[in-house]
Amino acid sequence: MIKTDILIIGSGPTGLFAVFEAGLLQLKCHLIDALPQPGGQCAEIYPKKPIYDIPGFPEVLAGKLVDNLMEQIAPFQPGFTLGERADTIEKLEDGTFIVTTNKGTKHHAPIVAIAGGLGSFEPRKPQLENLAQFEDKGVAYIIKEPEVYRDKKVVIAGGGDSALDWSIFLSDVASEVTLVHRRNEFRGALDSVEKVQQLKNEGKINLITPAEVKQLVGTDRLEKVIVRKTDNSEEIELEVDNFIPLFGLSPKLGPIADWGLEIEKNAIKVDNTLDYQTNIPGVYAIGDVNTYPGKLKLILCGFHEATLMCQSAYQRIYPDKKYVMKYTTVGGVTGFDGSKKEAPKAVVKSIE
Amino acid sequence: MIKTDILIIGSGPTGLFAVFEAGLLQLKCHLIDALPQPGGQCAEIYPKKPIYDIPGFPEVLAGKLVDNLMEQIAPFQPGFTLGERADTIEKLEDGTFIVTTNKGTKHHAPIVAIAGGLGSFEPRKPQLENLAQFEDKGVAYIIKEPEVYRDKKVVIAGGGDSALDWSIFLSDVASEVTLVHRRNEFRGALDSVEKVQQLKNEGKINLITPAEVKQLVGTDRLEKVIVRKTDNSEEIELEVDNFIPLFGLSPKLGPIADWGLEIEKNAIKVDNTLDYQTNIPGVYAIGDVNTYPGKLKLILCGFHEATLMCQSAYQRIYPDKKYVMKYTTVGGVTGFDGSKKEAPKAVVKSIE
Repeated sequence: MIKTDILIIGSGPTGLFAVFEAGLLQLKCHLIDALPQPGGQCAEIYPKKPIYDIPGFPEVLAGKLVDNLMEQIAPFQPGFTLGERADTIEKLEDGTFIVTTNKGTKHHAPIVAIAGGLGSFEPRKPQLENLAQFEDKGVAYIIKEPEVYRDKKVVIAGGGDSALDWSIFLSDVASEVTLVHRRNEFRGALDSVEKVQQLKNEGKINLITPAEVKQLVGTDRLEKVIVRKTDNSEEIELEVDNFIPLFGLSPKLGPIADWGLEIEKNAIKVDNTLDYQTNIPGVYAIGDVNTYPGKLKLILCGFHEATLMCQSAYQRIYPDKKYVMKYTTVGGVTGFDGSKKEAPKAVVKSIE
Repeated sequence: MIKTDILIIGSGPTGLFAVFEAGLLQLKCHLIDALPQPGGQCAEIYPKKPIYDIPGFPEVLAGKLVDNLMEQIAPFQPGFTLGERADTIEKLEDGTFIVTTNKGTKHHAPIVAIAGGLGSFEPRKPQLENLAQFEDKGVAYIIKEPEVYRDKKVVIAGGGDSALDWSIFLSDVASEVTLVHRRNEFRGALDSVEKVQQLKNEGKINLITPAEVKQLVGTDRLEKVIVRKTDNSEEIELEVDNFIPLFGLSPKLGPIADWGLEIEKNAIKVDNTLDYQTNIPGVYAIGDVNTYPGKLKLILCGFHEATLMCQSAYQRIYPDKKYVMKYTTVGGVTGFDGSKKEAPKAVVKSIE
């Protein structure tokens, strides 16, 4: 059982920044995310794209924003349960919560802050008869740990940045990489497309286009895929260890929709006059996952909501304490790791 | 008469960022500030101090944050009325406003957003009998334009960073700089104290401590000051052109308090369920100047409030238009100056 003060569902920018504001209040955070790394969409979907409306950054790459936030919150040593989806919530008699993931990991906290963005990102899956049978037995939709593919024969399907970038990366790791796409044209960053062209010319990536994977074959594990060319219906049988369709991720509110929260247009209704708390006391919703009058789904709004949520969480956890806010410029930042950042003090010195 | 869409009172971080969000909505902004430069407290009081709680910045100097915001809003070409205090507001029959400064500059806009921070910063003044008589006739409390002191004889009073830094700066501009402080000890950045020590040794700053300016002498303009040493009561008469007491600034809500706004604990009450509007429709209050349940006086909260204010302002100005928000990552940023920033587009390209 993982114990913490604030359990944050979702590790996008809003969830990450909540760790910082909680830390200033001496509250510890743990984050659950269905994706294999922190950063939410910014890290998974568009890490190399610029954002122009983060205050103080005329331009910042989404991945860089996540890196910065990770550095900013490091002194407060957040815990992470990654690659697992928060599935169920149980309220105990003492008002605290137990949240269990799809892998059975249990988390216990007095406060739950849902910072789930547009929901957990579920992979789009190809329409293949026996696909489910091979999941985790050769078929994967997200690459969590590239070393799993060391010296394996891998087939990747897809025509976007993910398919391009992982084909490039795995061409150095796997013994054989085949990239299958239903068109001849790929859509992605210019340098990724050119790199795949080069690796294909060097024989390091086996390219089959226009084509689709039509059949999966195997007994206990995946053993073969049948690829059909769409221009001449030629069928190609490939012996493989892994098949990784990378057709993008689509967000789903998912199991959270069944937690008894008031839902409106796929978002969680919150009280925005005070603290972004939901209809379940002790459960908050911050960032893109919530809705209230005038709501804007902007990262900068999530930062504000996270901050007010932490103040309210503090009052719930310590109803008798009065927190006196100190500006970081004045009080500095003291990490749970014993680190201390603070402004240089003015000197008092005679001039002779 | 200066005309604009949103007239912003106060050019601290919140006011500045409002220009950006307004710009995305194609609304033009003009800012009034009592200080001689944009940036509010960040630029005037603690430009060299680090802030640790701006999301995405593990550490940023307050002055650097202002510089970044100025760069971020540059495409939207804000206007500035600096060194003037917004004094009166008048609501016209058509619901628009005229705001007039203490220098008589008039501004006309359908929306007024008060981003006044803790108020306009008023200098702390020394207790001297005929001080008011020499204001703008040799006596100044803020240095707006250092060139005014070219080849003049200047007496500065004070013992903090302002007094130290301006003594250093003016030692190169004025013909004579005298620094008077009631103690021998100065309180400031180490390098400033050491620099003054060095300039004193070189004879470029005339230092009189412990001492106080006791009397101002002159007919039409300031001509002399009488300084009294506090250890031996010796009196020193100095012929001067200018006397600049730099005893710090203290914030005062000032004339805004008489604009008919609901005030609570020196702050303006706003509706935070929607748009941070005050009791006067069309007048908003954002950032440290406002108050609502759960209010935190943090820069990051001001950014959020500014953003929601702009959406509401847009609806007031264009009641019949429906604004569809576009993420800057997707839609880019198009400046009023014709500039365009946008994410590199994905290429669609065959791999042969």
